[in-house]
Amino acid sequence: MPELRKDPITGRWVIIATDRAKRPSDFIRQPVPPARQGVCPFDYGNERKTPPEVLAYRNSGGRDEPGWRVRVVPNKFPVLGIEGELSRQGEGMYDKMNGIGAHEIIIETPDHSATLGDMPERQIEEVLGAYRDRINDLKRDTRFRYIVLFRNHGEAAGATLEHPHSQLIALPILPKRVMEEVDAAREFYTNKERCIFCDIVHQESAAGVRLVAETERFAVIEPYAPRFPFETWILPKRHASHFESSDGPSLQNLAWVLRSTMRKIDKVLERPAYNFIVHSAPVQEGPLAYYHWHIEIIPKLTKVAGFEWGTGFYINPTSPEDAASFLREAEA
Amino acid sequence: MPELRKDPITGRWVIIATDRAKRPSDFIRQPVPPARQGVCPFDYGNERKTPPEVLAYRNSGGRDEPGWRVRVVPNKFPVLGIEGELSRQGEGMYDKMNGIGAHEIIIETPDHSATLGDMPERQIEEVLGAYRDRINDLKRDTRFRYIVLFRNHGEAAGATLEHPHSQLIALPILPKRVMEEVDAAREFYTNKERCIFCDIVHQESAAGVRLVAETERFAVIEPYAPRFPFETWILPKRHASHFESSDGPSLQNLAWVLRSTMRKIDKVLERPAYNFIVHSAPVQEGPLAYYHWHIEIIPKLTKVAGFEWGTGFYINPTSPEDAASFLREAEA
Repeated sequence: MPELRKDPITGRWVIIATDRAKRPSDFIRQPVPPARQGVCPFDYGNERKTPPEVLAYRNSGGRDEPGWRVRVVPNKFPVLGIEGELSRQGEGMYDKMNGIGAHEIIIETPDHSATLGDMPERQIEEVLGAYRDRINDLKRDTRFRYIVLFRNHGEAAGATLEHPHSQLIALPILPKRVMEEVDAAREFYTNKERCIFCDIVHQESAAGVRLVAETERFAVIEPYAPRFPFETWILPKRHASHFESSDGPSLQNLAWVLRSTMRKIDKVLERPAYNFIVHSAPVQEGPLAYYHWHIEIIPKLTKVAGFEWGTGFYINPTSPEDAASFLREAEA
Repeated sequence: MPELRKDPITGRWVIIATDRAKRPSDFIRQPVPPARQGVCPFDYGNERKTPPEVLAYRNSGGRDEPGWRVRVVPNKFPVLGIEGELSRQGEGMYDKMNGIGAHEIIIETPDHSATLGDMPERQIEEVLGAYRDRINDLKRDTRFRYIVLFRNHGEAAGATLEHPHSQLIALPILPKRVMEEVDAAREFYTNKERCIFCDIVHQESAAGVRLVAETERFAVIEPYAPRFPFETWILPKRHASHFESSDGPSLQNLAWVLRSTMRKIDKVLERPAYNFIVHSAPVQEGPLAYYHWHIEIIPKLTKVAGFEWGTGFYINPTSPEDAASFLREAEA
């Protein structure tokens, strides 16, 4: 059973994944080459290579058979285990918890070599629908306080399988960075009675210099103080705290926005590795006036080095104004 | 002039290094191969390829001539500029500051291919002495609130030059991660009237399971909740808040500890890329009862992916108890 441990100084929780414990030689061995088409566990015909599916949108076939369009399965090597009661314990001056959680894989398409930029819009809409459906199902389990949805694309961004997929991790605690964001947004709201993210959308939409694109429902911006070059945020223009409460037309519009943003990034940066993360409110909270869900896309262009680890302070060699201008001008 | 910008939500400052602004194609081009011995700007005979030295310990020669043992120069491509008054400004809802600071390179030895593990102990002691001397000089400039000292070794850890060197960046603000650490340590002290780092040293020294080595003056431990496999901390056993106040015997002992720790890491992980960072108290503060300087060494073994960026929550596949056991048993 993996363990959750809390750093006594900063309060940061980490997962010590003892189940897939690594010996030093595991780090030194070359990584296995990515599974090619046909032998990939996420391809049609290989459904038995994954744990049984928890959700699928299908044209044909029964459970764990081909014919699906989007398929969600538990991770075969989960970082947290779904079974058991939460148990919090002390260990001398330290705090720990058993590693209860869920870790699922959203297989976005049967097409092994598709990318978000070249998938059909309708396919992306279904992927977003699967995100929503899985979060809404998992949040009924009150052990889970936060659900993080993310996508690693390319080896440099930490992806170990090439086949298009996203991941979902449900956690029994609020992670540090989430807590900071939520707390800061609450404080802003307390002072001004306005959502800080709504303010950002208004200011960026009016100023235009960091605006990449805008639809009726979404704004795509380069944030004012980005940690990374070409860091890009997608925010709904109408206030909403929880991604999983999005309605059909919103997901449809988001599919278009996400696809066109990825096409611009692929064009300007020649198909970079990237991470994207859905930032949404803690799942056990009702609708919040002060928090605003959004997606952060981080192309993997620079290496994070000692300075950043030591200080939490980032050096970004590209201004967001320049990045926005390159992305605005790129044909989607 | 580079700009310091503050993220309005999390309060994180970033440097937007507009002076070395990068266009998209700069990220796509392959990195230049590392300078080989002889053409390296940090080798003997190439002293004119760097900005004029600000400090050197020498056997012979005059300023910017060969004959030095350790040499400190301003970075030729600094992320912050040394000249000018600090000027804080608003920009709509945002906050910025001109990029005042210092960025120096500590060239640790004339030997192009030396490593910390195979340098003579006396050489490392001089490097640590250069750290101390430069911090003590720079902190007289009251524009600087924090000085971060770090070392990137290997391309995977962000090093662009192979020649053994460390870097120093003096900042006009307290970086976020530093502020968190200092604030948390102060809070602990307020509650318990003890330094949290002293408590950690006592507990780890008594328990032994996460202890790598111990001398009269230093403890080397794997922290209880490490973000990364084989993350290793070196802490002075006697309370001290500022690295730059270390006396001669301490630096002498630290040189031995640092060298033997790096030898163990090199042995167990086969000479990995790594970052190390000196965590020390804000430079304009007098001695603090609640903060305790230390060094954090982070071997670069795993890739930080979307989950970590999204949540500030880390998955570590090696327990610190296992890592400590491997390092304890390795011959230094």
